[in-house]
Amino acid sequence: MLCSSLKRVLPTTYIQASPRSVRDELPTLLKPTVWLENDKVVMLDRRLLPNKIEYVNLVTDEDVARAIEKMVIQGAGSIAIAAGYGMALALRKSNPTSNEQLKAVVERAATRLIHTRPTGSMLARLIEEAKQIALNASKPEQAWKLVAQYVDSAEVRSRRVAELCGKNAASLLNDGERILTHCYAGPALIYMLMEARALGKKVDVFATETRPYLQGAKLTAFTLKEAGIDTTLITDSSVGYCMWKRMIGKLFTAADRIAMDGSVANKVGTYLCALAAHQNKVPFYVLGYGGPDKHTSSMQEIPIEERNPEELFEISGQRIALAGIAGYYPAFDVTPPELVTGIVTDKGTFRPTEIKRYFETPQPNPRK
Amino acid sequence: MLCSSLKRVLPTTYIQASPRSVRDELPTLLKPTVWLENDKVVMLDRRLLPNKIEYVNLVTDEDVARAIEKMVIQGAGSIAIAAGYGMALALRKSNPTSNEQLKAVVERAATRLIHTRPTGSMLARLIEEAKQIALNASKPEQAWKLVAQYVDSAEVRSRRVAELCGKNAASLLNDGERILTHCYAGPALIYMLMEARALGKKVDVFATETRPYLQGAKLTAFTLKEAGIDTTLITDSSVGYCMWKRMIGKLFTAADRIAMDGSVANKVGTYLCALAAHQNKVPFYVLGYGGPDKHTSSMQEIPIEERNPEELFEISGQRIALAGIAGYYPAFDVTPPELVTGIVTDKGTFRPTEIKRYFETPQPNPRK
Repeated sequence: MLCSSLKRVLPTTYIQASPRSVRDELPTLLKPTVWLENDKVVMLDRRLLPNKIEYVNLVTDEDVARAIEKMVIQGAGSIAIAAGYGMALALRKSNPTSNEQLKAVVERAATRLIHTRPTGSMLARLIEEAKQIALNASKPEQAWKLVAQYVDSAEVRSRRVAELCGKNAASLLNDGERILTHCYAGPALIYMLMEARALGKKVDVFATETRPYLQGAKLTAFTLKEAGIDTTLITDSSVGYCMWKRMIGKLFTAADRIAMDGSVANKVGTYLCALAAHQNKVPFYVLGYGGPDKHTSSMQEIPIEERNPEELFEISGQRIALAGIAGYYPAFDVTPPELVTGIVTDKGTFRPTEIKRYFETPQPNPRK
Repeated sequence: MLCSSLKRVLPTTYIQASPRSVRDELPTLLKPTVWLENDKVVMLDRRLLPNKIEYVNLVTDEDVARAIEKMVIQGAGSIAIAAGYGMALALRKSNPTSNEQLKAVVERAATRLIHTRPTGSMLARLIEEAKQIALNASKPEQAWKLVAQYVDSAEVRSRRVAELCGKNAASLLNDGERILTHCYAGPALIYMLMEARALGKKVDVFATETRPYLQGAKLTAFTLKEAGIDTTLITDSSVGYCMWKRMIGKLFTAADRIAMDGSVANKVGTYLCALAAHQNKVPFYVLGYGGPDKHTSSMQEIPIEERNPEELFEISGQRIALAGIAGYYPAFDVTPPELVTGIVTDKGTFRPTEIKRYFETPQPNPRK
């Protein structure tokens, strides 16, 4: 249903870079959801899923920043890629002809984009890298292209990392097992379940609805349905009971940031899932994609984004709370390493306290 | 705004029995929300709060049973009272003239009403008692009156128990403290906070929204606002983070059933709150009203109601989930005694493992 419009807006270079991404049978969220196309950034509006598959055109880097803030795109990896394209767009539109102009554009756009969402680590790392690439461009007017190519390749790399992470995680699953997941754990979760199926393991999923944005109900359930995986929705508050009732074999979530001490920042509620898992001896694996953030040594250093409490008071446009009431909305929480069984990455699974070893571990063989 | 219509429908005997209940300054949910009036049961529709204060007329015991099942009335104590009036209504409407007729009506109505909601213990106990009262009536046609009087006095007693429980709990609070509560913990919570204020203690409240029925957003926040207590709404999933951030001094919830081993069944999610409290050394007090259920020796004996998963898929009439998806909706969970600091009752506060002592403890002095 989507493919013709997707192909129409998909840049040729992109299709060359990642031919798998446009295969019709892939779930919507495993295809590209953001890219640079001439002088705009095209982005799938995740807020409309599963009711509508609609792409928005963003014509300035400010548009991209606002789309990130307003949850048009979600998930640490996708946000980072979107911001990177935002930087390329800023450079392309401003068309700097001197190093001074280039520097001014880069600094302004980088500051704006980095400050959209503070908790995920990939955004800041990718923008810092893009900034250096732009500043080192020999011709200022070509900087946008270098940045766009860098982001394209980061996107391709992140897809490969997600696939490897998912495949590594699939080896942890048993036939007939039910897993629980919170929020939308990104493509690695889907790759994991598709790989498990390919290995002949039947695995089904309990997904929390994940208030207030309902990523579980809207993104996870939708994507798993597209992938043909049996999924059951529960409220965020039912996690403890389901584990106590021995209905859950393993818990899997993603991570927006992993500190070098093995602490995991992820969607608020993950910490409660982890506590319930620990108490009920349910193994908790974090889909850690490309590993920890070198620059974050411990959980104390992870900034937790506090969003506008107004976002709690409405559900799909319906007011649920009394006018004039206060609200508090931390978007993430931090799970300490002692509650995590293992962190699964593209390089294999690590104990959280040994996650530093990620950096000494060789890249897996690309043929595998 | 409500009082004139309330007075109009309030039976005279009721006003005599509980003069406090019609004081204008009391929050809506501290006034009577269900009563027998001639040949109908009148019930506040809690599902419409805080947007509308509307009472429904129920003309048969089947109507009452359905209203309980459909969450028109909520909370173990209120449900029990409503069911009791349903029994009186069944007897009044059928007007039995022989002991055989009486027995048939009583058995049918009791079975129907007891099966509406299985987890709370007060419903079954009250209906069993009402059944005996009816069966022992010397004149079958007068049985309804005896049952109605019994339920009236149970209502008055439960109000006094709530007030005593709340006052006992107020002594646990410190000036300047913030507490967290989950779901709507009933009148004892409100009495506790009003008493604390009378004692010069400023206490504010974090309330979980409590999906799927949003009792926190709709009942707790509304009632606390009416009572003039500062309240902040959070998602059910934010409990762990708020405790980890040391934002919460104590956790208070109600209980739908307390087993003799100190296990506590309450709204699903309470167990997660308790786990987070325990991990972060936040004391967890259960507002235990009139104590444990003698007939439930341990948590294994508590039946947990599983409701229709369709109730998860809509929020205030808006569909949030994909068509055709599965859901699982346990309405309660059980918290083991080791996660509970104390159970506060009308007779004082008990350690959960010593809750059996409730029955040996004398009734408090009614003057106090």
